[in-house]
Amino acid sequence: MQYPEPIAQLIDSYMKLPGIGQKTATRLAFYTIDMNGDDVTRFAKSLISAKRDLHFCSICGNITENDPCDICRDKTRDQSQILVVEQAKDIMTLEKMKEYHGLYHVLNGVLSPIEGKGPEDLNMASLLKRLQSNDAVKEVIIATNATPEGEATAMYLSRLIKPAGIKVTRLAHGLSVGSDIEYADEMTLYKAVEGRTEM
Amino acid sequence: MQYPEPIAQLIDSYMKLPGIGQKTATRLAFYTIDMNGDDVTRFAKSLISAKRDLHFCSICGNITENDPCDICRDKTRDQSQILVVEQAKDIMTLEKMKEYHGLYHVLNGVLSPIEGKGPEDLNMASLLKRLQSNDAVKEVIIATNATPEGEATAMYLSRLIKPAGIKVTRLAHGLSVGSDIEYADEMTLYKAVEGRTEM
Repeated sequence: MQYPEPIAQLIDSYMKLPGIGQKTATRLAFYTIDMNGDDVTRFAKSLISAKRDLHFCSICGNITENDPCDICRDKTRDQSQILVVEQAKDIMTLEKMKEYHGLYHVLNGVLSPIEGKGPEDLNMASLLKRLQSNDAVKEVIIATNATPEGEATAMYLSRLIKPAGIKVTRLAHGLSVGSDIEYADEMTLYKAVEGRTEM
Repeated sequence: MQYPEPIAQLIDSYMKLPGIGQKTATRLAFYTIDMNGDDVTRFAKSLISAKRDLHFCSICGNITENDPCDICRDKTRDQSQILVVEQAKDIMTLEKMKEYHGLYHVLNGVLSPIEGKGPEDLNMASLLKRLQSNDAVKEVIIATNATPEGEATAMYLSRLIKPAGIKVTRLAHGLSVGSDIEYADEMTLYKAVEGRTEM
């Protein structure tokens, strides 16, 4: 015996999401049937809308409804700094900090020979074009993740940009605020000692 | 700064699902944007369809596209047994076993004074009506979960049905197949000893 077709299809759809296997998908599907009808309609509409109404900003690569995105159009932001991130969602995380007021650039990935991702697969050409066509930029802050691929990408970008006489910086590595030294890994501790600051 | 409206709405919708908080919802929303357009459309359609095309079987309370459901309409099934479950999805789990060929009845919950759920909130009246109007039923197998509420509901149902002269049985409790005695809880061990069988 099979699930009724509408449930089977919904389970299939839930299983396409990352980290959701058959059991969770089944639970979610049965939960959906019990949900408020309006909520389900809104869910379906927001899925369609997210796919249809969102685009990549033609300047920075951010995900946006309007092109250019709100940040690129905001002339009150510091036009002399560009912060480079791997993913569009990293922008939102950084914006929550409320301490950075410059511009952004989304690479949309990192260099990864294993996955066959080279410089031409990332938004690097558009970054270089931005730097060449705009004298206002004085500093590029590289905020790729602290993974081997993120580090390699940061190194590659830095070598590409530095010759143009633009300052290239990298986010600091060290202990998380509120963390215990006891639980820090060796690499983090090494970076924390290396980057120690005078009190 | 806020997420673009379509993302914010999608995050809200994902957060309405059980066990999905803000971080997971955000991850799923950004994942959705990168998904194949056809998959997203199919996902949205299956949500609408699951809510619109599925109903409760008027006989047993199972979730179905057709009323009565496939099981209730199947005259080759053993009409003398009714197995009582808490949720419609339990039927599918039992059907996978392929060893039970009787009918089902879905209570749609359990007695729970804390949640204010009494007998009138469950599909108990419809079960009694089935038993009264149908002489073919010889046995009611109660398969509520092995929780305090499930046990109480089983006990309540049994007292309700027995006076009609119908045999009432309960699924056996004991060690899971393949499990270690070392990791079994005391209550399960007690039930396993109590229900021991001769070899």
